[in-house]
Amino acid sequence: MIEHYEPVGIEDVRAAHQRISPHIHRPPILTSGSLDTAFGCQLFFKCENFQKSGVFKVRGAFNALLSLPAEERALGIATSSSGNQAAAVSLAAQALGTSAYIAMPKIALKSKVAAVERYGGNIVWVESVGQVPTSGEYDATAEAIRERTGATLVHPYDDPRTIAGQATCALEMLEDCPDLDVVLAPVGGGGLLSGTCLSSAALAPATRVIGCEPEMADDAQRSLRQGKIVPQTDPRTIADGLRTSLGELTFPIIARHAADIVTVSEEAILMAMRHVWETMKIIIEPSAAVPVAALLEGRIPADAGKVGVILSGGNVDLDSLPF
Amino acid sequence: MIEHYEPVGIEDVRAAHQRISPHIHRPPILTSGSLDTAFGCQLFFKCENFQKSGVFKVRGAFNALLSLPAEERALGIATSSSGNQAAAVSLAAQALGTSAYIAMPKIALKSKVAAVERYGGNIVWVESVGQVPTSGEYDATAEAIRERTGATLVHPYDDPRTIAGQATCALEMLEDCPDLDVVLAPVGGGGLLSGTCLSSAALAPATRVIGCEPEMADDAQRSLRQGKIVPQTDPRTIADGLRTSLGELTFPIIARHAADIVTVSEEAILMAMRHVWETMKIIIEPSAAVPVAALLEGRIPADAGKVGVILSGGNVDLDSLPF
Repeated sequence: MIEHYEPVGIEDVRAAHQRISPHIHRPPILTSGSLDTAFGCQLFFKCENFQKSGVFKVRGAFNALLSLPAEERALGIATSSSGNQAAAVSLAAQALGTSAYIAMPKIALKSKVAAVERYGGNIVWVESVGQVPTSGEYDATAEAIRERTGATLVHPYDDPRTIAGQATCALEMLEDCPDLDVVLAPVGGGGLLSGTCLSSAALAPATRVIGCEPEMADDAQRSLRQGKIVPQTDPRTIADGLRTSLGELTFPIIARHAADIVTVSEEAILMAMRHVWETMKIIIEPSAAVPVAALLEGRIPADAGKVGVILSGGNVDLDSLPF
Repeated sequence: MIEHYEPVGIEDVRAAHQRISPHIHRPPILTSGSLDTAFGCQLFFKCENFQKSGVFKVRGAFNALLSLPAEERALGIATSSSGNQAAAVSLAAQALGTSAYIAMPKIALKSKVAAVERYGGNIVWVESVGQVPTSGEYDATAEAIRERTGATLVHPYDDPRTIAGQATCALEMLEDCPDLDVVLAPVGGGGLLSGTCLSSAALAPATRVIGCEPEMADDAQRSLRQGKIVPQTDPRTIADGLRTSLGELTFPIIARHAADIVTVSEEAILMAMRHVWETMKIIIEPSAAVPVAALLEGRIPADAGKVGVILSGGNVDLDSLPF
């Protein structure tokens, strides 16, 4: 029998949780009678929209920074991001008294740029051929930052420290709700989904983890079906956090542990987002609405039972709402 | 020494809580580090926007219905409302298998009319001379409903059953946070505020209860200062739940127990509402933003300490947001 090599183990996740817990929120799990009735299952929403910086990504950001030796941490941290990772890393760096350098695309949402500035992060705009920079264009900018500042590069998803940090979200959810039948998480680069897979496999091996992504950015589903990373080209989805492709580290974890990847339409994402706002009175961003859209479009079996849903973030621009 | 007669006592509040608890949510109390920093005190938000029907008013509605003998309950319940009371009474009546008849003004928000219809309530439009019906015009319509259907009239605020029900909100908050220095609640007709006064006086006599209302509907402040009910005329505030005048029952309770009534500008209400949406990622309606506006405008002492804030509701029309 061949041993699978896992770049991140549950002991890394537990260590990350201990490391970051003093610095982050443990968001509540909310329930909704009307959504249970609408979807025919029992839903448990992990509200990472209430997390610091409004998104789960501070988990990975704090874990990366707190894993660095003091002298390296003092030089700062660099990352590339369309927005949420940018704010999260900026917040974590500010909280720990060091610098954040963010390679950001010029099309980033105004509200996400403002968040970086509020948390004192240094933005470096990524030069790109298309509207959305490629992974290579992001990496080149991040590398230039590293050379100039000596900051440590932390990949927004394809980094063991990031994955272990994001995994603490499902760890908390499964501690609070140990008997979930299914866990739904959105998938972009796969940091959150691979972490969710790791925590679920260790804590609740019978729980099925299903990744949810936009039809317009369905690289994870195609990658899983073809058994290799199929990069995303020209992702035209409103779910701006899910436009990236799976990484060398996240792909094999997801391929091994995820029960399925399902896709949803843009219309369903908007309807799901509005439905959550109206019934739960909480603000979620389009990327967070993707698992709810999967329920809305019947992509999750109707007899799913107890379903944990990671509401990944709540950063929207109130001046340009999509509805 | 003259004994003050209280139409509602803490034993009524406790009985109401026992009666309604199986039918309502016990919304969580949320905190926010950034709002604490912004306002220089420690804030505890009782999230009645997460309550069934999106507002605290189901508490009074269920208490009124559950207080009725079965044969009276079967004939239904009638009330008058600009919106939130309407939805709450409709939901409670539907849940308990009886009818709701609602005297509603023609200018009610579309979203609030839709909520009544969703919960199967029967709307009877109030004929009025001005845009906003007077108390007399509401009462005439409600009385006509009673004559036609035999339904029991329940006043939206000036009814002991309503007051005892709304008082359970502060009861829960003070059970969860027993050492609050101040409690802030919005005041319209005074159902919520008088109930908050009763629970606080009994459970936490050292806690100061401060009512918050729009400058454009400042009848509670004027009533307290003049020592008699000063009816509200032509209230032009965006806080549509706070346009009514204090009642014969609510006024003396508030006059006796409230530490103060403060007023806020329309601009502050909108800013506070948006600020809560953006920082806490929860949806509150303008009326619920009024206590936060009081903090924003410095109407609450900066050394207030631990401050409980009742976020009374979250029913907004996403198609016509005020920002």
